[in-house]
Amino acid sequence: MQVDGKNYTTIWIHPQNKKAVQIINQKRLPFSFEILDLHTPEDVFRAIKEMEVRGAPLIGAAGAMGLYLATLELKEREKAPVHLAKTAANLKSSRPTAINLAIAIDAMMAELLKISSLPELQETAYQLALDRVGLELDYCKRIGEQGVSLIEAISHRKKGDTVNILTHCNAGWLACIDYGTATAPIYLAHEKGIKVHVWVDETRPRNQGSKLTAWELSSHGVPNTIIADNTGGHLMQHGMVDLVIVGSDRTTRTGDVANKIGTYLKALAAADNHLPFYVALPSSSFDFTITDGMKQIPIEQRSSKELSHIEGMYNNELATIDTTPKEGTQYANYGFDVTPARLVSGLITERGICEANEQSIAKMFSDLMKT
Amino acid sequence: MQVDGKNYTTIWIHPQNKKAVQIINQKRLPFSFEILDLHTPEDVFRAIKEMEVRGAPLIGAAGAMGLYLATLELKEREKAPVHLAKTAANLKSSRPTAINLAIAIDAMMAELLKISSLPELQETAYQLALDRVGLELDYCKRIGEQGVSLIEAISHRKKGDTVNILTHCNAGWLACIDYGTATAPIYLAHEKGIKVHVWVDETRPRNQGSKLTAWELSSHGVPNTIIADNTGGHLMQHGMVDLVIVGSDRTTRTGDVANKIGTYLKALAAADNHLPFYVALPSSSFDFTITDGMKQIPIEQRSSKELSHIEGMYNNELATIDTTPKEGTQYANYGFDVTPARLVSGLITERGICEANEQSIAKMFSDLMKT
Repeated sequence: MQVDGKNYTTIWIHPQNKKAVQIINQKRLPFSFEILDLHTPEDVFRAIKEMEVRGAPLIGAAGAMGLYLATLELKEREKAPVHLAKTAANLKSSRPTAINLAIAIDAMMAELLKISSLPELQETAYQLALDRVGLELDYCKRIGEQGVSLIEAISHRKKGDTVNILTHCNAGWLACIDYGTATAPIYLAHEKGIKVHVWVDETRPRNQGSKLTAWELSSHGVPNTIIADNTGGHLMQHGMVDLVIVGSDRTTRTGDVANKIGTYLKALAAADNHLPFYVALPSSSFDFTITDGMKQIPIEQRSSKELSHIEGMYNNELATIDTTPKEGTQYANYGFDVTPARLVSGLITERGICEANEQSIAKMFSDLMKT
Repeated sequence: MQVDGKNYTTIWIHPQNKKAVQIINQKRLPFSFEILDLHTPEDVFRAIKEMEVRGAPLIGAAGAMGLYLATLELKEREKAPVHLAKTAANLKSSRPTAINLAIAIDAMMAELLKISSLPELQETAYQLALDRVGLELDYCKRIGEQGVSLIEAISHRKKGDTVNILTHCNAGWLACIDYGTATAPIYLAHEKGIKVHVWVDETRPRNQGSKLTAWELSSHGVPNTIIADNTGGHLMQHGMVDLVIVGSDRTTRTGDVANKIGTYLKALAAADNHLPFYVALPSSSFDFTITDGMKQIPIEQRSSKELSHIEGMYNNELATIDTTPKEGTQYANYGFDVTPARLVSGLITERGICEANEQSIAKMFSDLMKT
């Protein structure tokens, strides 16, 4: 999408150096727009771990790029199985909740180990990594096309009045390659001239909403308002929200949705106020092997510093401040929660919109879903 | 309660100067423990507006103190009706959502205007202000005695294992004179040797949870853990919460509860997980004149700076940083929300625990409730 009038994606091969990957450093946003070069799988591991890249689809693509960079480190084909398997395991450990990462890496590994010549293996890794990027990009574009109908219908019902959409965290183009998942229908509606306005949950403790979603929507010209995570329920009670769309880090074959911590609370509020609550996700964010999101999806616990410290501008410089007392108090920082399928109005995927239950998901993804 | 081993209340008359009121400056917590002198009703107005004092019961007491200070400005009895009425209206405007303020001031005004001599009026104002402080303190103490039974019952059921209580915002002793409302049963349970642990919602955007509740619980030795406001639902889903207790800024005669923004979301999560959700409040926080919290309770909108900026320690100094992009994005900052009575398990008051419905409230407060 656009930044200062120029089109960007979130990850790409360096235009002058095929052996380097470039990313937008999302840790610096919204304070500065910085592009980073990644040369090794360790660089990719750090970029995921430190959240320089984040968002399930982008992490999947970054993982594929990491595996490509690992092939460049090989001197002989014989070392490939051990080196690539080690790299794959390490990369997958960088963000256990997001399923795209494991799917992208496992699929690529299976292909690569079939190849007997090293140059061919490296070239195939390059192509497969680009394919993963292209696939995730295409998924998002099609999610937009599928989901825009929901916004059009509300706009029609409201006789052209602004459609107010609430979103949580960043499932925007920054979380993907382009367009985003939750934001793809919003960007497309905006392009079509439908009046939209987005309520952006701040999304504590990392503030992906106020730092990333607000930044990307504003950069692209979509009207938006930052709110505290506490506010969505009140807005819904007072008719100020027409539709909720969020992304997903992993969705079960039964439609349980793991997403950024706090998503469940918004789903409850939407249900209590009879408002549509949709989850936008590519097929690559499904985990077709599991049936119980609450019991089977691992929830990452992150550093307490994310809660106790916060970064912002102070005297024109980036500063990290300590906001809480430390003596005697503890911190708990769970990264994700699981929204049970019963609270989800529907899943917006690249193939269409389906209900959040095993039957409806199986109908749409019969080829991917092993029984 | 205790701070560094010494007992404090939140507001008192200066021990060496009867014409001055002293408060703990809550804007400085948890970074420094500062006591402020208030000499005029304007000082009190500013203290409420700027949240140097906050919390419905404390604001009521502060309002009474403000009216007392206004009587000291009078040179002749004849000026009393106009000057005090003007002061009363001004003080009441400093926090429209909290009902205690209006109740305390109106009750005091009615008494004061009956008195014909100025010295007697001033002395009565002094006594009435102290009575209000004493009344709010007594309410909290009794709320603790009434509510502790809930914690004892859970502790018994858990065979002495730790009782995990979630609270939102600060309805602690800092919000009151002492003991607190939501925290009163917790402090009393702690004193009785019952194992308790408190999940403290950060409470964006002003962070009253991480800045005040965590500070006061830790200062008094009660185990507690700060969490993002997004986290409570996840904890409840996983059996990590036994009980929710919050305070209230205003509760209708039908049991609808206005409290800090985000309370409604926790009530929804408690209901979804079949967990008890209690509201602790003195009779002075009821508004017996209204029946529909959603339609009849004014919700204060506050400055966007509370969302975009945050205060903390930077290089050993207090600094305010800007955390969000400003170009093209907007902010909305609603201070409170209303939790419908149907989501409230019960109301813990100084007279006992009643159900959140008109019949049960009327039975307990028949003397205060005009039909």
